[in-house]
Amino acid sequence: MNREKGEKNEKIDKYGRRDGKYVVGVDFGTLSARAVVARVEDGNVAGESEAAYEHGVITGALEDGTTLEKDMALQDPEDYLKALRAAVTGALTAAGARGEDVLAFGFDFTASTVLATDAKAAPLAALPPFRSAPHAMVKLWKSRSATEEAAALTAAASAAGEPWLRQYGGAVSAEWFFPKVAETIKKAPGVYAAAATFMEAADWLTLRLTGNCLRAPSFAGFKAGFTWENGYPSGKVLAAVDPRLGHFADRKMTDEVAPPASVAGSLTVSGAELTGLVPGIPVAIPVIDAHASMPALGLTRPGDAMLILGTSGCFIMHGEGPADVPGTCGFMQDAIIPGLTTFEAGQAAVGDIFDWFVRTQVPEAYYREAGARGVNIHQLLTALASELKPGASGLVGLDWHGGNRSILADSSRRGMITGLSLSTRPEEQYRAWLEAAAFGFRRILEQYEAYGVPVDNICVSGGIALKNPLLVQIYADVTGRVLRVSRSAQSGALGSAVFAAAASGCYRSVHDAAQAMSAPCDVIYSPDPASSAAYGELYKKYCRLHDFFRDF
Amino acid sequence: MNREKGEKNEKIDKYGRRDGKYVVGVDFGTLSARAVVARVEDGNVAGESEAAYEHGVITGALEDGTTLEKDMALQDPEDYLKALRAAVTGALTAAGARGEDVLAFGFDFTASTVLATDAKAAPLAALPPFRSAPHAMVKLWKSRSATEEAAALTAAASAAGEPWLRQYGGAVSAEWFFPKVAETIKKAPGVYAAAATFMEAADWLTLRLTGNCLRAPSFAGFKAGFTWENGYPSGKVLAAVDPRLGHFADRKMTDEVAPPASVAGSLTVSGAELTGLVPGIPVAIPVIDAHASMPALGLTRPGDAMLILGTSGCFIMHGEGPADVPGTCGFMQDAIIPGLTTFEAGQAAVGDIFDWFVRTQVPEAYYREAGARGVNIHQLLTALASELKPGASGLVGLDWHGGNRSILADSSRRGMITGLSLSTRPEEQYRAWLEAAAFGFRRILEQYEAYGVPVDNICVSGGIALKNPLLVQIYADVTGRVLRVSRSAQSGALGSAVFAAAASGCYRSVHDAAQAMSAPCDVIYSPDPASSAAYGELYKKYCRLHDFFRDF
Repeated sequence: MNREKGEKNEKIDKYGRRDGKYVVGVDFGTLSARAVVARVEDGNVAGESEAAYEHGVITGALEDGTTLEKDMALQDPEDYLKALRAAVTGALTAAGARGEDVLAFGFDFTASTVLATDAKAAPLAALPPFRSAPHAMVKLWKSRSATEEAAALTAAASAAGEPWLRQYGGAVSAEWFFPKVAETIKKAPGVYAAAATFMEAADWLTLRLTGNCLRAPSFAGFKAGFTWENGYPSGKVLAAVDPRLGHFADRKMTDEVAPPASVAGSLTVSGAELTGLVPGIPVAIPVIDAHASMPALGLTRPGDAMLILGTSGCFIMHGEGPADVPGTCGFMQDAIIPGLTTFEAGQAAVGDIFDWFVRTQVPEAYYREAGARGVNIHQLLTALASELKPGASGLVGLDWHGGNRSILADSSRRGMITGLSLSTRPEEQYRAWLEAAAFGFRRILEQYEAYGVPVDNICVSGGIALKNPLLVQIYADVTGRVLRVSRSAQSGALGSAVFAAAASGCYRSVHDAAQAMSAPCDVIYSPDPASSAAYGELYKKYCRLHDFFRDF
Repeated sequence: MNREKGEKNEKIDKYGRRDGKYVVGVDFGTLSARAVVARVEDGNVAGESEAAYEHGVITGALEDGTTLEKDMALQDPEDYLKALRAAVTGALTAAGARGEDVLAFGFDFTASTVLATDAKAAPLAALPPFRSAPHAMVKLWKSRSATEEAAALTAAASAAGEPWLRQYGGAVSAEWFFPKVAETIKKAPGVYAAAATFMEAADWLTLRLTGNCLRAPSFAGFKAGFTWENGYPSGKVLAAVDPRLGHFADRKMTDEVAPPASVAGSLTVSGAELTGLVPGIPVAIPVIDAHASMPALGLTRPGDAMLILGTSGCFIMHGEGPADVPGTCGFMQDAIIPGLTTFEAGQAAVGDIFDWFVRTQVPEAYYREAGARGVNIHQLLTALASELKPGASGLVGLDWHGGNRSILADSSRRGMITGLSLSTRPEEQYRAWLEAAAFGFRRILEQYEAYGVPVDNICVSGGIALKNPLLVQIYADVTGRVLRVSRSAQSGALGSAVFAAAASGCYRSVHDAAQAMSAPCDVIYSPDPASSAAYGELYKKYCRLHDFFRDF
């Protein structure tokens, strides 16, 4: 993250404070909070720190033994506060800075990560009656036990013809806000009765830091069906899922949805205690964690796109105006950057497939060989796979092991591989799965362009993008695109720092802040013409498989 | 093989010889010769013995370092003679019998296993000028380097409209007789010039044992395109592959094709030395090794069928009259039993798929677990797979890792599996491959019945049938058929003993000999109705995949 820019002398900032040269961004991920202390003038990261959540992701059972449904994934809201304090103070220490040196604060959060609070914004989880109540805990984004509620909401919205359903991909996910709330209403009516409201953890943190109850737009839109034109899904449609959900929305979802990249408020005294910063500095409206990386990578223009390659694949893009692109995960105008439309699409499993493969399909001899070479199993298979030619193995796969998120939007779809022979080797299959992921991405790109949303500039981020150059090269060859990779592993936190910088008033816009502060995407992957041609042929096969197994 | 029948007292046989109560059958397999000494009156095996070929299967290079083409698989003809002597004398010793106790001799052989001989029937391989000549060696059945010649012969026969091509499956295999000869003509003209003829190793052994040069009908038909109506492929068609092949067939394939189950001749003095038996006893016309098991299992009526589950799957059936069943491997009238038509179909890989899977796709933890349980990896995966319900994993595969032999007759087809999820476990895939093999078999059965060839009685043999009861049960459930399994592992050699018994004159026919001498197929697998119903649904998916990937 340390960029090769010369240190500059301290100066008096526009607030007249000698030391006020930093902004702090915190990325609340699945397992930890990561903070950066970034110089406001150029984004140089002076210090960073990561703090794991004490209870991590709670699955299977609560600490007291209360068993959880199979697909539930919970968190303890106190963990966020402890990690926030630890990460920010750690980053300040690393930067050799004090709270007084910080101009503004921003953060991003996983979504939809939902909690119930009482009227004083205390999480119900912290109250004695609910210590053993799973539904009083935070339901983490990947808690997926509300499948029935999601299906019911899809059906009701579809029957009512409400436009938000189509705008956000045509099907409600069990990961979204209202299914999680509806599930609590149904399975834990006592928790529901005691709840003053349900909030995204991001909005709850805004409230804790600023005292203002505001809903951040990207969460409200992508995770709760909010549109600027029509607000949330109608009470009528929500009532079709459960009458109490209709009441809830009508009576309790009345908080304002804030404009993007705006100031949520000033850090309160208690907020200052939580962060180790000083009261009064501006706190930016938060964004969804995946979105935060875009300004960190300088992606603030229409046609700018970011592909995040992690356990799953997330594709986020800025465009102009609305555009209904069937089978993608939706779009929202003014979601994170004023004036721009944010589009989302995704692949349900990318790194998860590679991990499943090495965990369940790779014989011991490969692990021994990896050990002998002093590399991990992915590195070994990547090295062996990189010696193979595109298409040479005859294998073609569909990357649907976790369903097809885009463009079929069908979580019941499953992965397949064809071309297996008695001499098929693990490295050939490994490469076929890398290729399948790239083909899946090309299919998404083509969908956008077919529906009039141009994609001009693709930056790749995420852990796998840094760890596996072969994968990124295959993506470049398969798509025929130049792909740029950021060396930064902390772009989420830096992105939140960019929003903080915009909130500080040092820049006229997020765009200006991002251009000044963003980390460069300067590792360039250019498509190899011969490989691109070979993959062009293989992609035709992928598309035939795609269309056949769409209906299989 | 020891059947639970009470020993009977010795008696004077119809030849008036007190001790002449045995027949000897020898099964020449890929790696060894296995001999049985069987009591002629009831087939009771008094002794058996196996002798490996000294040089086994020669691939890669000859002993002197001469490198071989990638797909060549050779043998040394002297190995057959040494193994014959060792196996027969070993079996006699095990039986406590002498050569004088043996009434007749029969054998079966792999096919098409081809060698070139001089005018005195000496293999060219044994002559000094050809010690380093690969094409002077025996080309074992699975030597597959003559692909171009096979394609050329298919094309020429197709263009000429010769009926044998369609009768024997529509495509000439590189494993067959004429491609192997054509390959020698092209690649080793010196060997060809020195060769008086080319013979199946089976016919060469007949010649060595009896002095009679006769071609056995099942080899001539299934491996060289011979039909009783039209003889061999025409010289014109063979000449289209290579003019010299046309000359060869016209001038050197003039030996008589013998009627099935007939006497090839009497054992000569030198034949007696080779076997350790006495001169003058009848030697039966040999059969292809896979066919020999049928009489050993009592399968000598129309509608009787045998499924051999080994590395590949071989389906052999008796019917009445000709019937063109598209995509099967062909039929021949009077091939091994007078009056009956022998039908063949096959699956290119069965056990080979399971072996490929455990070798390349199963992680170490399973091997450790197998070790802890004291079982092998197949036994562990079978035990885990047997706990799964039909269709529960969602996986469906095509068993085409070695191509599709029947009913697509397309060796370029490849295996596939669909239904993969991030929680797919190795035992689920293992079971899916077992099921895929069974689905492939059901498709073959349906093809026969659709084209008017009824299948009444299926006996399963082969090593996997004994080792993996789950596999056979899945075959029963998938086909909805009662399947019977023989406990015998040596049915090939016993079948050859049945042919010897018929040749001895002790029985009026092979059928009578088989009914008296056959080993029982008395392990019964009945289809489970619930599983059959579940597989009925899954089979529909298999058929959709089958038809899609036929043209993929």
